[in-house]
Amino acid sequence: MNGHISRIGVFDSGIGGLTVLKCLLDLVPAREMIYLGDTARLPYGTKSPRTIVRYSLQCGRFLAEKGVDMLVVACNTASAHAVPALREELHIPVVGVVEAGSRAAVETGGRKIGVIGTSSTIQSRAYELTIQGLMPDARIFTKACPLFVPLVEEGWCEDEITAMVARRYLAGLVQEHVDTLLLGCTHYPLIKGVIASVMGEGVTIVDSAYSTAREVRDLVGGEVDGGTAPHVEFYLTDTSPAFVEIGGRFLGGDIVSVIDVDLHV
Amino acid sequence: MNGHISRIGVFDSGIGGLTVLKCLLDLVPAREMIYLGDTARLPYGTKSPRTIVRYSLQCGRFLAEKGVDMLVVACNTASAHAVPALREELHIPVVGVVEAGSRAAVETGGRKIGVIGTSSTIQSRAYELTIQGLMPDARIFTKACPLFVPLVEEGWCEDEITAMVARRYLAGLVQEHVDTLLLGCTHYPLIKGVIASVMGEGVTIVDSAYSTAREVRDLVGGEVDGGTAPHVEFYLTDTSPAFVEIGGRFLGGDIVSVIDVDLHV
Repeated sequence: MNGHISRIGVFDSGIGGLTVLKCLLDLVPAREMIYLGDTARLPYGTKSPRTIVRYSLQCGRFLAEKGVDMLVVACNTASAHAVPALREELHIPVVGVVEAGSRAAVETGGRKIGVIGTSSTIQSRAYELTIQGLMPDARIFTKACPLFVPLVEEGWCEDEITAMVARRYLAGLVQEHVDTLLLGCTHYPLIKGVIASVMGEGVTIVDSAYSTAREVRDLVGGEVDGGTAPHVEFYLTDTSPAFVEIGGRFLGGDIVSVIDVDLHV
Repeated sequence: MNGHISRIGVFDSGIGGLTVLKCLLDLVPAREMIYLGDTARLPYGTKSPRTIVRYSLQCGRFLAEKGVDMLVVACNTASAHAVPALREELHIPVVGVVEAGSRAAVETGGRKIGVIGTSSTIQSRAYELTIQGLMPDARIFTKACPLFVPLVEEGWCEDEITAMVARRYLAGLVQEHVDTLLLGCTHYPLIKGVIASVMGEGVTIVDSAYSTAREVRDLVGGEVDGGTAPHVEFYLTDTSPAFVEIGGRFLGGDIVSVIDVDLHV
């Protein structure tokens, strides 16, 4: 498949998917990337599965029309609900953070796996069911952590308040002695330090953003033309001044230009 | 005008407007109320003014078609951007939380007024400009408090973490010795206790939800048929299990039935 993938589309409901894009730029640098943030309708996490599938198909169609030959679903909520529908309609490889993260969690060799994410991701049981499918004897413990996203967006990443919130959210998982903790939300890599310190030594932290990029690299194939600078286009469904500011922090670099689009047909 | 108002429409991007509805049920009990939460597209706070006006007009049209003869814009963001457009199109009285809250803040007799709200509400400068228009010599200090909404939705209303967040957000306003603090977000009445305790004695807390209901009562007129039980219908643009649970807490009572609607024409 490697020769055919030259343009990769990435979509998320907003900013979070930029952590996936950042890992893609590190691991698969010499491809064109198109990032779509559906900022007009974020967050997907509070919406119903039916609505999430509808929105995801609109995002997927937009990127397919831009000529992408691989689609990365960087939004956990969309990945939990819409990957089968996207594969069926678009006929290109679709990589979702839920499958990629679950595979990576199982590969650690752990048997007691904790999963954290937004309320909707946890309620969907998507990670839980995917991990159980891969490793039927895994014991899985989940916890919704709805304050982590706004704490990251405040930039309070190394912070006493974030540490207190993390201790409260993660107390049950610490008590269960999980050996692996899967970060099931693309915002969470930015507070990985706080989370790891609360969980303590001996707990492997698996980052679904990184795992997704690694899976894309394996699909795209080995040889990478390191000489070509990556070309990235950013599209948003609504102007968001926060995107450039917060997004720069997520991406670890400046976002130069963003194009507004309207998906509402 | 009093005789003509029999059905009041209230809309918000989600749950927050229920604090306004609760005050309306207390102050103007004998009217039919229709509540619309645009949960499919919440929050409005992160969206552009252009998009907020478009969404608000769709909400207003929906309620007008349901026969409301007064419209209450319970969403601060929508109130900041869309009230003129709604008045122009609907030709019924439109009461917005920004105007009502600003008037109430000015009526306290304070001269140094603090305003807190979501990032978008504060960036819009809507409260600031409205208060300045009413009292040109007012000194106004604003602060965006984006974590307050998710803290309220977690139910951490009387909580050490919420108090720490409040102390950090409000430190500047305390230091400026504001004499009045306007709660410019419909979620904030649920943490009024924490906020008041951080601000200290001598600071008047003005709640824009209550102020809005008082303004509606004044417009609707005095005589109230106390014998009639209030009739409320709830409409949401997307199913939200959280609405019934969190909403019950906001409203201080059970939400029995909710009807899903689709505004996308």
